[in-house]
Amino acid sequence: MKKLINDPAHYVDETLDGLTLAFPSLVRDGAAGRVIRRAEGVTRGKVGIASGGGFGHLPLFTGYVGRGLIDSCAIGNVFEGPNIDSCVDAIRLADGGRGVLRLYGNYGGDRMNFDMAGEVLEDEGIRCTTVLGTDDIASGGPDEIGRRRGVAGLIYAYKAAGASADRGADLEEVTRIAAKAVAATRTIGVGLAPCRLPSAAKPSFELAEDEIEMGIGIHGEPGIWRDKLRSADAIADEMVDRLLADLPAQTGGEVSVLVNGLGATPQEELFILYRRVRKRLDDAGVNVVQPLVGNYVTSMEMQGASVSLFHLDEELKTLLRAPAECPFWRVD
Amino acid sequence: MKKLINDPAHYVDETLDGLTLAFPSLVRDGAAGRVIRRAEGVTRGKVGIASGGGFGHLPLFTGYVGRGLIDSCAIGNVFEGPNIDSCVDAIRLADGGRGVLRLYGNYGGDRMNFDMAGEVLEDEGIRCTTVLGTDDIASGGPDEIGRRRGVAGLIYAYKAAGASADRGADLEEVTRIAAKAVAATRTIGVGLAPCRLPSAAKPSFELAEDEIEMGIGIHGEPGIWRDKLRSADAIADEMVDRLLADLPAQTGGEVSVLVNGLGATPQEELFILYRRVRKRLDDAGVNVVQPLVGNYVTSMEMQGASVSLFHLDEELKTLLRAPAECPFWRVD
Repeated sequence: MKKLINDPAHYVDETLDGLTLAFPSLVRDGAAGRVIRRAEGVTRGKVGIASGGGFGHLPLFTGYVGRGLIDSCAIGNVFEGPNIDSCVDAIRLADGGRGVLRLYGNYGGDRMNFDMAGEVLEDEGIRCTTVLGTDDIASGGPDEIGRRRGVAGLIYAYKAAGASADRGADLEEVTRIAAKAVAATRTIGVGLAPCRLPSAAKPSFELAEDEIEMGIGIHGEPGIWRDKLRSADAIADEMVDRLLADLPAQTGGEVSVLVNGLGATPQEELFILYRRVRKRLDDAGVNVVQPLVGNYVTSMEMQGASVSLFHLDEELKTLLRAPAECPFWRVD
Repeated sequence: MKKLINDPAHYVDETLDGLTLAFPSLVRDGAAGRVIRRAEGVTRGKVGIASGGGFGHLPLFTGYVGRGLIDSCAIGNVFEGPNIDSCVDAIRLADGGRGVLRLYGNYGGDRMNFDMAGEVLEDEGIRCTTVLGTDDIASGGPDEIGRRRGVAGLIYAYKAAGASADRGADLEEVTRIAAKAVAATRTIGVGLAPCRLPSAAKPSFELAEDEIEMGIGIHGEPGIWRDKLRSADAIADEMVDRLLADLPAQTGGEVSVLVNGLGATPQEELFILYRRVRKRLDDAGVNVVQPLVGNYVTSMEMQGASVSLFHLDEELKTLLRAPAECPFWRVD
């Protein structure tokens, strides 16, 4: 498991340098340089959206800073949440005078630091609300959604809340939309091979040469089962079955589908998965709107994929289709 | 080396099904379904551009079918060129009445089949010209450019020739532009770990756990040296040195840079590479225009990256910046 890196201690900062050099719409900011914000700055009078999380998931989180998406992002070390100062900086840099929605994945460290940052900023008069991504169905039962982790489906909440903020909605409304988008999103992942932290000698977990793990998290958190590798269609079938059992779709209903590569999975295989997911949804009479197939939320060189379903009503569909632009996702 | 696939015999066709389901702007066509063409069909009166090659390099070749890029693409099996019938179909489907440029990588099998297809079609009155991608500096000396393989830099030729055709240029002019773009492009790759053909039990080559290969081809063709893994900066330095030694850039000159992942390399690492490539070009007084960082030309799960430089004059810069749109590359 070789890496094209320099000193592991500089991994995050060198990557952020390269990212912002390649995409001038993204700018490093914050006292420690661990915030990415929109180069054009805050739009006055718009509700801000700040996100953040551990590093190693590009394009998540930082890559989704852009028009109609999020305004700023606090960045931690690899697989470690951002520190309080960076959270404070990110929220401040997202503030356009109408309050800031904190929208990020449901992980303990991130929650603690974003909460404490919010307390600091309320003293400054910046109103904050919070919505947590909890789309990973493998990390808690349907009756304990508050325990579920946020994974790839978070980008749908970015999209819906970002569109709502762009249209001039107030903080309560943007927060309602974000929560509605999270509630309408379900994700499950499958892992084929692990990743290794740049500073570590060993992979984050191990899988036998013929083994896969259903339900794995984006940091290698344990899933639902480990068993022999099976066909892409069998894997896709189980993923769709589990997703629809957790949140059924009506015949004639609409969903967006995200077939997401975890980092080292060839695009060819993502399309083979998508083909089957699409067939299953077609067979169930569920219409697919604006599908996404590619590497949207990764775990460095982890091999595997996730499937997310974003269940749409007219309101969410309109927001999904609203214009948005960041280096990794564009809607006209 | 596990794969999310079904029967290896259906790998290409299932991937193409998923690709066209995800992106309705691409349509399968041709007698064997091994041509991808633009859904909107041929633009009458425009010079057509047909490409093609072996499969397993997504987004290349098929992903670049689109406005301001290529019109059709013939697809072979994994790492095997398209057959004559698919080449004939692709050229025919690209024909808008003003002739077709065949623009593809310099590989013996592809050349033979595209040449024979052209002979068939000249009898039908479709005029054809040919330009071959030869950007890989590791596969021949500067005095034997005709022996060099076409790799990631081919997409710059697509872009320039596609823009020229879109502006109404005739076949001679589009052909001249494609040849000029190829002559202005240089690429070198580095491999860290191999890929495996879906039908094979073993990887296409082997590299020791601490070894990399400089100059590797996109099918694992042997490169310039094999040696211990070194730092990303040292690798980037050698790549830039070799590229600029092969085709020097003037101080004050302009290039576009493509830092391309070969399939299993995390985006983080591509940005670390780009950071150094950019610094080296900045230091040399060479200006970077429209950089590309991502997975543009892959070899399934091969780990590694390539760096391409596209040397610009005013004519090529204008064509690079002209509008284009396909599922994997968009310029406004």
